[in-house]
Parts: sequence; structure tokens; C-alpha cells
Amino acid sequence: MGDKPIWEQIGSSFVQHYYQLFDADRTQLGAIYIDASCLTWEGQQFQGKAAIVEKLSSLPFQKIQHSITAQDHQPTPDSCILSMVVGQLKADEDPIMGFHQIFLLKNINDAWVCTNDMFRLALHNFG
Amino acid sequence: MGDKPIWEQIGSSFVQHYYQLFDADRTQLGAIYIDASCLTWEGQQFQGKAAIVEKLSSLPFQKIQHSITAQDHQPTPDSCILSMVVGQLKADEDPIMGFHQIFLLKNINDAWVCTNDMFRLALHNFG
Repeated sequence: MGDKPIWEQIGSSFVQHYYQLFDADRTQLGAIYIDASCLTWEGQQFQGKAAIVEKLSSLPFQKIQHSITAQDHQPTPDSCILSMVVGQLKADEDPIMGFHQIFLLKNINDAWVCTNDMFRLALHNFG
Repeated sequence: MGDKPIWEQIGSSFVQHYYQLFDADRTQLGAIYIDASCLTWEGQQFQGKAAIVEKLSSLPFQKIQHSITAQDHQPTPDSCILSMVVGQLKADEDPIMGFHQIFLLKNINDAWVCTNDMFRLALHNFG
């Protein structure tokens, strides 16, 4: 743990926590967002913790499992942490699909919250 | 142009400019970065305008063409703009490959510069 830069430790901890919580019970994801948070889900915009949790809770699957292929983390000039995730997911009995997602994390009152979140399925990327 | 939020106008203008410049002459990309900029290229980290331009200039292809499939933009609480791009690229006579890239833009002295940039090829995303 001591080898990696702090932003990589925080970023990867957040990412692990996010997908574990998403897969176990995504209705509980509210804690990681604030009222200023923005989510863009497959091109649709959602603003604020309540709207974001409502969108994630209403996604049309019961079971979901994410698997991370790669993740990158960087510090930003405003002391935030930017994370990019590439992975695969399986919803219910649907085929496995690729996805990518990015998170911007900000430290507010000693807690790292997600202020910006963008998700897209990787349906058209295969060359 | 008047319909879209300002962050989407700025984000999409930047993205268009970035790939036009990259495809025409990527050695000229220095102007969009600053000394505090970070690039993560296929998992490798580069810090600062000079190192970033050196990396991009030394990529092992002559011709390159990017095509954008989708792009998403959001404002951040620190008045930056976060952009996520999904697309395809063709380098020299290689097969077309998918990619995703993210940019964090900051307004410094009335110019939008890129402080954070992450790029990955979409080789393992096909489900």
C-alpha cells in the first residue's frame, strides 16, 4: 500500500467500494454523491444525489456483476482525484458487456465524494 | 449553438480541436497542456507539457485518424469541464481500433487548457 501515490490509493479504494456496493445493493449508493453531483448515464444527464440514486435504482435488472479490467487515477490541480475504469459487466442472464466509467472525487468534510460520474457501455468499440 | 449548455459547447469544441490537431500534427499539441498537466497513456503516466508532447510525438505511427462515436461533458464544482470520448482510430495501415479518452479542462488566463488526460485502447471491451 505504501508504494502507490495517495491519489491512486484513494481512487482504487473508491472504485472497489463503488462496484461492490453497486453489485450488492445499488439503492445504497446515495452516500457517495452530493447535491451538486452530476451523472451522465449512456448520454442522459442526472443532477443531484436523489435523481442519481433514483436512476441507478430503476435500472432494469435484478442481478449485476462488474469486473474491472483496468483503472487509471490522477490528481487534479484542484486537489480532486480523477479515475477512469474499463471493465465488463453481466446483468441478470444477459451477455457480458464491456463498459467504461469515469469518476471525479472531491474531499468534502474529510470524506471523498463523487461529484462527477459518466458511464457508457462499450457496444461500438470493437474495431 | 445557443441550445447547449456552455460546458457542452466548450467541451465539444475542445474535443474537436484536439483530434483535428492530433491527426494533422500531434507535435503541436503542447499548447493545450500546462506544466501541471498529467497524461495517462495506456497505463503509463506522464507529467507536464514537455513530457506529454514528447510521448505523443514519439508514438509509432505516421498517419492517424480519429473518429468520435460519442462524447459526454459535465461541469465540475471547481468550474472545470470534464469530457469523456468514445471513438475509433486508424493508425497507418493497422486495423481500426476502439478507444476511450477523458479530459479535464480548466480555464487559466481566459484559455481552456487540459490539466488531466487519460487514454486507453478498447481492446478487451467486446463482450
